[in-house]
Amino acid sequence: MKTREAIVYAAAHVFDECGYSGASISKIMVQAGVTQGSMYFHFKSKQQLALEVIAKQQEFVNFQVGEPSLQRLVDLTFFMAHALQSSVLVRASVRLAVEQGEFGPPDPTAYHEWVDQLCIFLYAARERGELLDDVDEREFAALLTGAFAGLQIYSNIATGRADLNERLMVMWKYVLPTLAPAHVRARIVMRPYAEEQAA
Amino acid sequence: MKTREAIVYAAAHVFDECGYSGASISKIMVQAGVTQGSMYFHFKSKQQLALEVIAKQQEFVNFQVGEPSLQRLVDLTFFMAHALQSSVLVRASVRLAVEQGEFGPPDPTAYHEWVDQLCIFLYAARERGELLDDVDEREFAALLTGAFAGLQIYSNIATGRADLNERLMVMWKYVLPTLAPAHVRARIVMRPYAEEQAA
Repeated sequence: MKTREAIVYAAAHVFDECGYSGASISKIMVQAGVTQGSMYFHFKSKQQLALEVIAKQQEFVNFQVGEPSLQRLVDLTFFMAHALQSSVLVRASVRLAVEQGEFGPPDPTAYHEWVDQLCIFLYAARERGELLDDVDEREFAALLTGAFAGLQIYSNIATGRADLNERLMVMWKYVLPTLAPAHVRARIVMRPYAEEQAA
Repeated sequence: MKTREAIVYAAAHVFDECGYSGASISKIMVQAGVTQGSMYFHFKSKQQLALEVIAKQQEFVNFQVGEPSLQRLVDLTFFMAHALQSSVLVRASVRLAVEQGEFGPPDPTAYHEWVDQLCIFLYAARERGELLDDVDEREFAALLTGAFAGLQIYSNIATGRADLNERLMVMWKYVLPTLAPAHVRARIVMRPYAEEQAA
């Protein structure tokens, strides 16, 4: 089991660095420090490794929702920023979702799942009277999914994602007034995940 | 010259389809229908081809700015949607800018250039009294650059970019109220590029 895990982490490292097309079984073997026999005992193909990385990263995206609300939606975006900054499995999975083509036919499942997840928070916020009338939960969830994907790419290329929290604060600054009435906005706290955990 | 051009278009086609890492000189030769001799007469490496595609796409991004304003900033986003939908050179260049790693060290230049371009429109909008006091031109330009990058990726994976105009309309719906006062917003027209051209 330990070797298998080491291979999955090595694969995540290589996918994060080189993308799916740029990765190869031999690069992953070198990164993991395993022999060809050991590699093929656990994994037969690059595709199988990619699917394992995607499955494995879900262990890291265990956000403690609590009571879903607009505040928890904001918190979730900072949690994802933290997950990207701290887990190579999450970074690799996101890169695999962004760069499609050779991996297989275009598959929007990962994006649609995010939209569904975000909708849970937005529907709850609606129930709690936190959303303005004009907000369409599903269209805003799709906007947030797409915008987040691009912001983390830009942040990665510019600063290795060091400024991702600041970029998220800017995003919320420009969309919150359209989402929520002033008395709700006044209570929303913008805080990086580390600060939320310390609070 | 005609062969050279055919090779550049073929390279754009392959980069758009497979990304930089997934592309190869031999795939591009097959796509262009040229011999190895002919290929190496014009281009020595995949990297040289990528740089030529990026240089060449600029011919297609010749947006007629007119008088820069908030309306022209909105129009520019729909122009870029049209450019992505209609030009394989633009699609390839954007994919090369998004997927970095093997192509060379992370290079945010393309993103920063977009931020500078968008700032021209935002500074002009400020001069014209079209922006609210709290808007920071540079931070909003960076948000727009990142969000657009992600929205077009999601749109590409979900619908081959067929719904990109609708996604941009949603984006503007959620940010315009934070950007501009009501009397300015009332005059802003949301129109796909084809409709702007027909008007």
